[in-house]
Amino acid sequence: MLTLYFTAHTCALATHIALEDAGAEYALKKIDFAKNEQRDPAYLAVNPKGRVPALVAPQGVLTETPAMLAFVAQSFPRARLAPLDDPFAFATAQAFNSYLCSSLHVAHAHRMRGHRWVDPADTAAIAAMQRGVPKSVGEGFAMIEEHLFKGPYVMGAEYTICDPYLFTLAQWMEADGVDPARFPRVAEHRARMAERPNVRKAIAAELA
Amino acid sequence: MLTLYFTAHTCALATHIALEDAGAEYALKKIDFAKNEQRDPAYLAVNPKGRVPALVAPQGVLTETPAMLAFVAQSFPRARLAPLDDPFAFATAQAFNSYLCSSLHVAHAHRMRGHRWVDPADTAAIAAMQRGVPKSVGEGFAMIEEHLFKGPYVMGAEYTICDPYLFTLAQWMEADGVDPARFPRVAEHRARMAERPNVRKAIAAELA
Repeated sequence: MLTLYFTAHTCALATHIALEDAGAEYALKKIDFAKNEQRDPAYLAVNPKGRVPALVAPQGVLTETPAMLAFVAQSFPRARLAPLDDPFAFATAQAFNSYLCSSLHVAHAHRMRGHRWVDPADTAAIAAMQRGVPKSVGEGFAMIEEHLFKGPYVMGAEYTICDPYLFTLAQWMEADGVDPARFPRVAEHRARMAERPNVRKAIAAELA
Repeated sequence: MLTLYFTAHTCALATHIALEDAGAEYALKKIDFAKNEQRDPAYLAVNPKGRVPALVAPQGVLTETPAMLAFVAQSFPRARLAPLDDPFAFATAQAFNSYLCSSLHVAHAHRMRGHRWVDPADTAAIAAMQRGVPKSVGEGFAMIEEHLFKGPYVMGAEYTICDPYLFTLAQWMEADGVDPARFPRVAEHRARMAERPNVRKAIAAELA
Protein backbone atom coordinates (compact mmCIF):
# COMPACT_ATOMS: atom_id res chain seq x y z
CA MET A 1 0.00 0.00 0.00
CA LEU A 2 1.23 3.47 -0.93
CA THR A 3 0.22 6.84 0.49
CA LEU A 4 0.57 10.02 -1.53
CA TYR A 5 0.77 13.29 0.36
CA PHE A 6 -0.50 15.96 -1.98
CA THR A 7 -1.79 19.49 -2.27
CA ALA A 8 -4.10 20.48 -5.11
CA HIS A 9 -2.56 22.61 -7.86
CA THR A 10 0.96 21.31 -7.18
CA CYS A 11 3.22 18.91 -9.03
CA ALA A 12 1.89 16.11 -6.80
CA LEU A 13 -0.72 15.64 -9.52
CA ALA A 14 1.87 14.04 -11.81
CA THR A 15 2.53 11.15 -9.44
CA HIS A 16 -1.16 10.93 -8.61
CA ILE A 17 -2.02 10.36 -12.26
CA ALA A 18 0.83 7.88 -12.63
CA LEU A 19 -0.49 5.87 -9.66
CA GLU A 20 -3.85 5.70 -11.43
CA ASP A 21 -2.15 4.70 -14.68
CA ALA A 22 -0.25 1.99 -12.82
CA GLY A 23 -3.38 0.56 -11.27
CA ALA A 24 -1.74 0.98 -7.87
CA GLU A 25 -3.52 0.67 -4.56
CA TYR A 26 -2.91 3.93 -2.77
CA ALA A 27 -4.32 6.34 -0.23
CA LEU A 28 -4.34 10.13 -0.51
CA LYS A 29 -3.50 12.51 2.29
CA LYS A 30 -4.09 16.20 1.74
CA ILE A 31 -1.62 18.78 3.07
CA ASP A 32 -3.34 22.15 3.38
CA PHE A 33 -0.96 24.98 2.52
CA ALA A 34 -3.58 27.49 3.76
CA LYS A 35 -3.14 26.00 7.23
CA ASN A 36 0.65 25.72 6.72
CA GLU A 37 0.36 21.98 7.27
CA GLN A 38 3.51 21.42 5.21
CA ARG A 39 5.46 22.87 8.17
CA ASP A 40 3.54 20.84 10.77
CA PRO A 41 5.86 18.62 12.84
CA ALA A 42 3.78 15.57 11.94
CA TYR A 43 4.36 16.20 8.25
CA LEU A 44 8.00 17.20 8.70
CA ALA A 45 8.50 13.76 10.26
CA VAL A 46 7.32 12.30 6.94
CA ASN A 47 9.10 14.79 4.70
CA PRO A 48 11.65 17.07 6.36
CA LYS A 49 11.71 19.22 3.21
CA GLY A 50 8.27 20.52 4.18
CA ARG A 51 6.98 20.28 0.64
CA VAL A 52 4.66 18.09 -1.35
CA PRO A 53 4.54 15.55 -2.80
CA ALA A 54 5.78 12.69 -0.67
CA LEU A 55 5.07 9.03 -1.35
CA VAL A 56 5.08 6.67 1.60
CA ALA A 57 5.87 3.10 0.62
CA PRO A 58 6.38 0.05 2.85
CA GLN A 59 10.14 0.57 2.48
CA GLY A 60 10.14 4.26 3.42
CA VAL A 61 9.39 7.72 2.10
CA LEU A 62 10.16 9.04 -1.36
CA THR A 63 10.22 12.65 -2.50
CA GLU A 64 11.15 14.44 -5.75
CA THR A 65 8.75 13.91 -8.62
CA PRO A 66 11.19 12.42 -11.18
CA ALA A 67 12.24 9.77 -8.64
CA MET A 68 8.67 9.04 -7.57
CA LEU A 69 7.53 8.66 -11.18
CA ALA A 70 10.39 6.28 -11.97
CA PHE A 71 9.54 4.30 -8.84
CA VAL A 72 5.92 3.94 -9.92
CA ALA A 73 6.98 2.84 -13.40
CA GLN A 74 9.49 0.29 -12.08
CA SER A 75 7.14 -1.02 -9.36
CA PHE A 76 4.28 -1.65 -11.80
CA PRO A 77 6.09 -2.86 -14.91
CA ARG A 78 2.97 -4.34 -16.47
CA ALA A 79 1.56 -0.82 -16.84
CA ARG A 80 4.46 -0.06 -19.22
CA LEU A 81 4.87 3.53 -18.04
CA ALA A 82 8.54 3.79 -19.03
CA PRO A 83 11.01 1.97 -21.32
CA LEU A 84 12.38 -0.08 -18.45
CA ASP A 85 14.47 -2.46 -20.51
CA ASP A 86 16.41 0.16 -22.46
CA PRO A 87 18.80 2.25 -20.32
CA PHE A 88 19.19 4.93 -22.99
CA ALA A 89 15.45 5.33 -23.58
CA PHE A 90 14.84 5.28 -19.83
CA ALA A 91 17.49 7.97 -19.35
CA THR A 92 15.87 10.07 -22.08
CA ALA A 93 12.59 9.97 -20.17
CA GLN A 94 14.43 10.76 -16.94
CA ALA A 95 16.22 13.66 -18.64
CA PHE A 96 12.88 15.10 -19.75
CA ASN A 97 11.46 14.85 -16.23
CA SER A 98 14.65 16.29 -14.76
CA TYR A 99 14.31 19.27 -17.10
CA LEU A 100 10.73 19.82 -15.94
CA CYS A 101 11.85 19.64 -12.32
CA SER A 102 15.03 21.69 -12.40
CA SER A 103 14.30 24.21 -15.16
CA LEU A 104 10.58 24.60 -15.96
CA HIS A 105 9.19 24.15 -12.44
CA VAL A 106 12.00 26.29 -11.01
CA ALA A 107 11.18 29.08 -13.47
CA HIS A 108 7.52 28.87 -12.45
CA ALA A 109 8.44 28.96 -8.75
CA HIS A 110 9.90 32.44 -9.13
CA ARG A 111 6.34 33.79 -9.33
CA MET A 112 5.14 32.64 -5.89
CA ARG A 113 8.24 31.32 -4.13
CA GLY A 114 10.83 34.03 -4.72
CA HIS A 115 11.48 34.06 -0.98
CA ARG A 116 13.45 30.85 -1.48
CA TRP A 117 16.24 32.80 -3.13
CA VAL A 118 16.07 36.41 -1.92
CA ASP A 119 15.21 38.23 1.29
CA PRO A 120 11.38 38.17 1.41
CA ALA A 121 11.45 41.78 2.68
CA ASP A 122 13.09 42.87 -0.60
CA THR A 123 9.82 43.50 -2.38
CA ALA A 124 11.54 44.99 -5.42
CA ALA A 125 13.56 41.81 -5.97
CA ILE A 126 10.51 39.63 -5.40
CA ALA A 127 8.62 41.70 -7.98
CA ALA A 128 11.54 41.51 -10.42
CA MET A 129 11.45 37.73 -10.17
CA GLN A 130 7.70 37.71 -10.82
CA ARG A 131 8.17 39.87 -13.90
CA GLY A 132 10.75 37.42 -15.23
CA VAL A 133 8.43 34.41 -15.13
CA PRO A 134 6.68 34.78 -18.50
CA LYS A 135 10.07 34.85 -20.25
CA SER A 136 11.76 32.02 -18.34
CA VAL A 137 8.70 29.74 -18.32
CA GLY A 138 8.13 30.56 -21.99
CA GLU A 139 11.72 29.56 -22.79
CA GLY A 140 11.15 26.25 -21.04
CA PHE A 141 8.05 25.48 -23.07
CA ALA A 142 9.82 26.58 -26.26
CA MET A 143 12.59 24.06 -25.55
CA ILE A 144 9.98 21.35 -25.06
CA GLU A 145 7.91 22.34 -28.10
CA GLU A 146 10.87 22.59 -30.46
CA HIS A 147 13.31 19.99 -29.19
CA LEU A 148 12.12 17.61 -26.50
CA PHE A 149 8.49 16.70 -27.27
CA LYS A 150 8.36 13.88 -29.81
CA GLY A 151 4.61 13.40 -30.21
CA PRO A 152 1.94 12.27 -29.96
CA TYR A 153 3.22 11.57 -26.45
CA VAL A 154 6.26 13.20 -24.91
CA MET A 155 8.54 10.26 -25.70
CA GLY A 156 6.85 9.39 -29.01
CA ALA A 157 4.35 6.66 -29.73
CA GLU A 158 4.18 5.36 -26.16
CA TYR A 159 2.57 7.04 -23.17
CA THR A 160 5.08 7.31 -20.32
CA ILE A 161 5.57 8.93 -16.91
CA CYS A 162 6.68 12.05 -18.79
CA ASP A 163 3.11 12.72 -19.95
CA PRO A 164 1.36 13.35 -16.65
CA TYR A 165 4.30 15.46 -15.50
CA LEU A 166 4.26 17.70 -18.56
CA PHE A 167 0.47 17.95 -18.34
CA THR A 168 0.70 19.02 -14.70
CA LEU A 169 3.14 21.86 -15.34
CA ALA A 170 1.44 22.90 -18.59
CA GLN A 171 -1.72 23.63 -16.62
CA TRP A 172 0.07 26.59 -15.03
CA MET A 173 0.98 28.33 -18.27
CA GLU A 174 -1.72 31.00 -18.32
CA ALA A 175 -1.18 31.94 -14.67
CA ASP A 176 2.51 32.32 -15.49
CA GLY A 177 1.67 34.77 -18.27
CA VAL A 178 2.53 32.39 -21.10
CA ASP A 179 0.18 32.03 -24.07
CA PRO A 180 -0.39 28.33 -24.89
CA ALA A 181 -1.03 29.29 -28.52
CA ARG A 182 2.74 29.77 -28.88
CA PHE A 183 3.22 26.05 -28.22
CA PRO A 184 0.61 24.19 -30.29
CA ARG A 185 2.05 20.71 -29.72
CA VAL A 186 2.22 21.14 -25.96
CA ALA A 187 -1.24 22.73 -25.94
CA GLU A 188 -2.74 19.87 -27.96
CA HIS A 189 -1.11 17.34 -25.64
CA ARG A 190 -2.50 19.18 -22.63
CA ALA A 191 -6.02 19.15 -24.06
CA ARG A 192 -5.77 15.45 -24.94
CA MET A 193 -4.39 14.56 -21.51
CA ALA A 194 -7.23 16.47 -19.80
CA GLU A 195 -9.72 14.08 -21.40
CA ARG A 196 -8.11 10.90 -20.07
CA PRO A 197 -10.28 9.24 -17.41
CA ASN A 198 -7.34 8.74 -15.03
CA VAL A 199 -6.44 12.43 -15.26
CA ARG A 200 -10.02 13.51 -14.64
CA LYS A 201 -10.30 11.11 -11.72
CA ALA A 202 -7.08 12.34 -10.11
CA ILE A 203 -8.01 16.01 -10.46
CA ALA A 204 -11.51 15.38 -9.10
CA ALA A 205 -10.06 13.56 -6.09
CA GLU A 206 -7.67 16.43 -5.32
CA LEU A 207 -10.42 19.05 -5.53
CA ALA A 208 -12.94 17.02 -3.52
CA MET B 1 32.00 4.77 -27.26
CA LEU B 2 30.70 7.73 -25.27
CA THR B 3 31.66 11.39 -25.53
CA LEU B 4 31.25 13.77 -22.63
CA TYR B 5 30.99 17.47 -23.39
CA PHE B 6 32.22 19.30 -20.33
CA THR B 7 33.42 22.57 -18.94
CA ALA B 8 35.71 22.66 -15.92
CA HIS B 9 34.14 23.77 -12.63
CA THR B 10 30.64 22.68 -13.71
CA CYS B 11 28.43 19.77 -12.71
CA ALA B 12 29.82 17.85 -15.71
CA LEU B 13 32.46 16.59 -13.27
CA ALA B 14 29.89 14.31 -11.61
CA THR B 15 29.29 12.31 -14.78
CA HIS B 16 32.98 12.43 -15.63
CA ILE B 17 33.87 10.77 -12.32
CA ALA B 18 31.07 8.21 -12.79
CA LEU B 19 32.43 7.29 -16.23
CA GLU B 20 35.80 6.64 -14.59
CA ASP B 21 34.12 4.62 -11.83
CA ALA B 22 32.26 2.60 -14.46
CA GLY B 23 35.42 1.79 -16.38
CA ALA B 24 33.76 3.23 -19.47
CA GLU B 25 35.53 4.03 -22.70
CA TYR B 26 34.85 7.68 -23.36
CA ALA B 27 36.20 10.78 -25.01
CA LEU B 28 36.15 14.30 -23.54
CA LYS B 29 35.25 17.43 -25.46
CA LYS B 30 35.77 20.76 -23.78
CA ILE B 31 33.24 23.57 -24.23
CA ASP B 32 34.89 26.91 -23.44
CA PHE B 33 32.46 29.26 -21.75
CA ALA B 34 35.02 32.10 -22.11
CA LYS B 35 34.59 31.77 -25.89
CA ASN B 36 30.82 31.27 -25.50
CA GLU B 37 31.19 27.89 -27.21
CA GLN B 38 28.06 26.63 -25.43
CA ARG B 39 26.07 28.92 -27.80
CA ASP B 40 28.02 27.85 -30.88
CA PRO B 41 25.73 26.35 -33.57
CA ALA B 42 27.88 23.22 -33.68
CA TYR B 43 27.30 22.64 -29.97
CA LEU B 44 23.64 23.66 -30.08
CA ALA B 45 23.20 20.89 -32.66
CA VAL B 46 24.43 18.47 -29.97
CA ASN B 47 22.60 20.08 -27.05
CA PRO B 48 19.99 22.72 -27.90
CA LYS B 49 19.91 23.76 -24.25
CA GLY B 50 23.30 25.38 -24.76
CA ARG B 51 24.62 24.06 -21.49
CA VAL B 52 27.00 21.40 -20.27
CA PRO B 53 27.17 18.54 -19.69
CA ALA B 54 25.98 16.46 -22.62
CA LEU B 55 26.76 12.79 -23.13
CA VAL B 56 26.79 11.48 -26.67
CA ALA B 57 26.07 7.76 -26.87
CA PRO B 58 25.64 5.56 -29.95
CA GLN B 59 21.86 5.87 -29.45
CA GLY B 60 21.79 9.66 -29.19
CA VAL B 61 22.46 12.55 -26.83
CA LEU B 62 21.67 12.70 -23.13
CA THR B 63 21.56 15.77 -20.92
CA GLU B 64 20.61 16.42 -17.27
CA THR B 65 23.03 15.05 -14.71
CA PRO B 66 20.62 12.78 -12.76
CA ALA B 67 19.61 11.04 -16.00
CA MET B 68 23.19 10.76 -17.24
CA LEU B 69 24.35 9.28 -13.94
CA ALA B 70 21.55 6.72 -13.95
CA PHE B 71 22.43 5.85 -17.54
CA VAL B 72 26.05 5.24 -16.62
CA ALA B 73 25.01 3.07 -13.66
CA GLN B 74 22.57 1.01 -15.74
CA SER B 75 24.93 0.69 -18.71
CA PHE B 76 27.80 -0.63 -16.58
CA PRO B 77 26.03 -2.79 -14.03
CA ARG B 78 29.20 -4.63 -12.99
CA ALA B 79 30.53 -1.38 -11.54
CA ARG B 80 27.63 -1.46 -9.04
CA LEU B 81 27.15 2.30 -9.02
CA ALA B 82 23.46 2.16 -8.02
CA PRO B 83 21.05 -0.34 -6.43
CA LEU B 84 19.70 -1.41 -9.82
CA ASP B 85 17.66 -4.38 -8.62
CA ASP B 86 15.66 -2.52 -5.96
CA PRO B 87 13.24 0.09 -7.32
CA PHE B 88 12.80 1.77 -3.95
CA ALA B 89 16.53 2.04 -3.25
CA PHE B 90 17.13 3.19 -6.82
CA ALA B 91 14.43 5.84 -6.43
CA THR B 92 16.01 6.99 -3.16
CA ALA B 93 19.28 7.57 -5.00
CA GLN B 94 17.43 9.31 -7.82
CA ALA B 95 15.59 11.49 -5.30
CA PHE B 96 18.91 12.56 -3.80
CA ASN B 97 20.31 13.47 -7.20
CA SER B 98 17.09 15.24 -8.14
CA TYR B 99 17.38 17.34 -4.99
CA LEU B 100 20.93 18.29 -5.91
CA CYS B 101 19.82 19.25 -9.41
CA SER B 102 16.58 21.11 -8.69
CA SER B 103 17.28 22.63 -5.27
CA LEU B 104 20.98 22.82 -4.39
CA HIS B 105 22.37 23.54 -7.85
CA VAL B 106 19.51 25.96 -8.54
CA ALA B 107 20.26 27.86 -5.31
CA HIS B 108 23.93 28.06 -6.34
CA ALA B 109 22.99 29.29 -9.82
CA HIS B 110 21.47 32.44 -8.37
CA ARG B 111 25.00 33.71 -7.73
CA MET B 112 26.20 33.75 -11.35
CA ARG B 113 23.13 32.98 -13.45
CA GLY B 114 20.49 35.32 -12.04
CA HIS B 115 19.82 36.51 -15.59
CA ARG B 116 17.94 33.27 -16.15
CA TRP B 117 15.12 34.55 -13.95
CA VAL B 118 15.20 38.35 -13.97
CA ASP B 119 16.01 41.12 -16.43
CA PRO B 120 19.84 41.18 -16.55
CA ALA B 121 19.68 44.99 -16.60
CA ASP B 122 18.03 44.96 -13.17
CA THR B 123 21.30 45.06 -11.28
CA ALA B 124 19.54 45.49 -7.92
CA ALA B 125 17.59 42.26 -8.41
CA ILE B 126 20.71 40.43 -9.63
CA ALA B 127 22.55 41.62 -6.53
CA ALA B 128 19.64 40.61 -4.28
CA MET B 129 19.83 37.10 -5.71
CA GLN B 130 23.57 36.95 -5.10
CA ARG B 131 23.07 38.03 -1.48
CA GLY B 132 20.54 35.22 -1.02
CA VAL B 133 22.93 32.45 -2.05
CA PRO B 134 24.69 31.77 1.28
CA LYS B 135 21.30 31.21 2.94
CA SER B 136 19.66 29.09 0.23
CA VAL B 137 22.76 27.00 -0.50
CA GLY B 138 23.33 26.63 3.25
CA GLU B 139 19.77 25.35 3.67
CA GLY B 140 20.39 22.77 0.97
CA PHE B 141 23.53 21.47 2.66
CA ALA B 142 21.75 21.47 6.03
CA MET B 143 19.02 19.25 4.56
CA ILE B 144 21.68 16.89 3.23
CA GLU B 145 23.75 16.90 6.44
CA GLU B 146 20.78 16.33 8.75
CA HIS B 147 18.38 14.21 6.72
CA LEU B 148 19.63 12.82 3.41
CA PHE B 149 23.27 11.80 3.87
CA LYS B 150 23.48 8.32 5.40
CA GLY B 151 27.25 7.85 5.62
CA PRO B 152 29.92 6.86 5.04
CA TYR B 153 28.66 7.29 1.48
CA VAL B 154 25.57 9.27 0.55
CA MET B 155 23.35 6.19 0.37
CA GLY B 156 25.06 4.37 3.22
CA ALA B 157 27.62 1.58 3.05
CA GLU B 158 27.81 1.49 -0.75
CA TYR B 159 29.38 4.05 -3.04
CA THR B 160 26.85 5.16 -5.69
CA ILE B 161 26.32 7.77 -8.40
CA CYS B 162 25.16 10.12 -5.63
CA ASP B 163 28.71 10.45 -4.31
CA PRO B 164 30.44 12.12 -7.25
CA TYR B 165 27.44 14.44 -7.68
CA LEU B 166 27.46 15.60 -4.05
CA PHE B 167 31.24 15.96 -4.18
CA THR B 168 30.98 18.14 -7.30
CA LEU B 169 28.49 20.58 -5.80
CA ALA B 170 30.17 20.57 -2.38
CA GLN B 171 33.32 21.95 -4.01
CA TRP B 172 31.45 25.23 -4.59
CA MET B 173 30.52 25.83 -0.96
CA GLU B 174 33.16 28.39 -0.06
CA ALA B 175 32.58 30.45 -3.21
CA ASP B 176 28.89 30.47 -2.34
CA GLY B 177 29.68 31.94 1.07
CA VAL B 178 28.90 28.76 2.99
CA ASP B 179 31.27 27.53 5.71
CA PRO B 180 31.92 23.77 5.31
CA ALA B 181 32.55 23.54 9.07
CA ARG B 182 28.77 23.82 9.53
CA PHE B 183 28.37 20.48 7.74
CA PRO B 184 31.01 18.11 9.13
CA ARG B 185 29.65 14.95 7.49
CA VAL B 186 29.45 16.55 4.05
CA ALA B 187 32.88 18.14 4.55
CA GLU B 188 34.44 14.82 5.57
CA HIS B 189 32.86 13.13 2.55
CA ARG B 190 34.22 15.86 0.30
CA ALA B 191 37.73 15.45 1.66
CA ARG B 192 37.54 11.66 1.32
CA MET B 193 36.19 11.86 -2.22
CA ALA B 194 38.97 14.27 -3.23
CA GLU B 195 41.52 11.55 -2.46
CA ARG B 196 39.97 8.92 -4.74
CA PRO B 197 42.17 8.22 -7.77
CA ASN B 198 39.22 8.45 -10.20
CA VAL B 199 38.26 11.85 -8.83
CA ARG B 200 41.82 13.14 -9.05
CA LYS B 201 42.13 11.80 -12.58
CA ALA B 202 38.88 13.41 -13.73
CA ILE B 203 39.74 16.80 -12.23
CA ALA B 204 43.23 16.71 -13.71
CA ALA B 205 41.82 15.90 -17.15
CA GLU B 206 39.37 18.82 -16.98
CA LEU B 207 42.05 21.29 -15.94
CA ALA B 208 44.62 20.05 -18.46
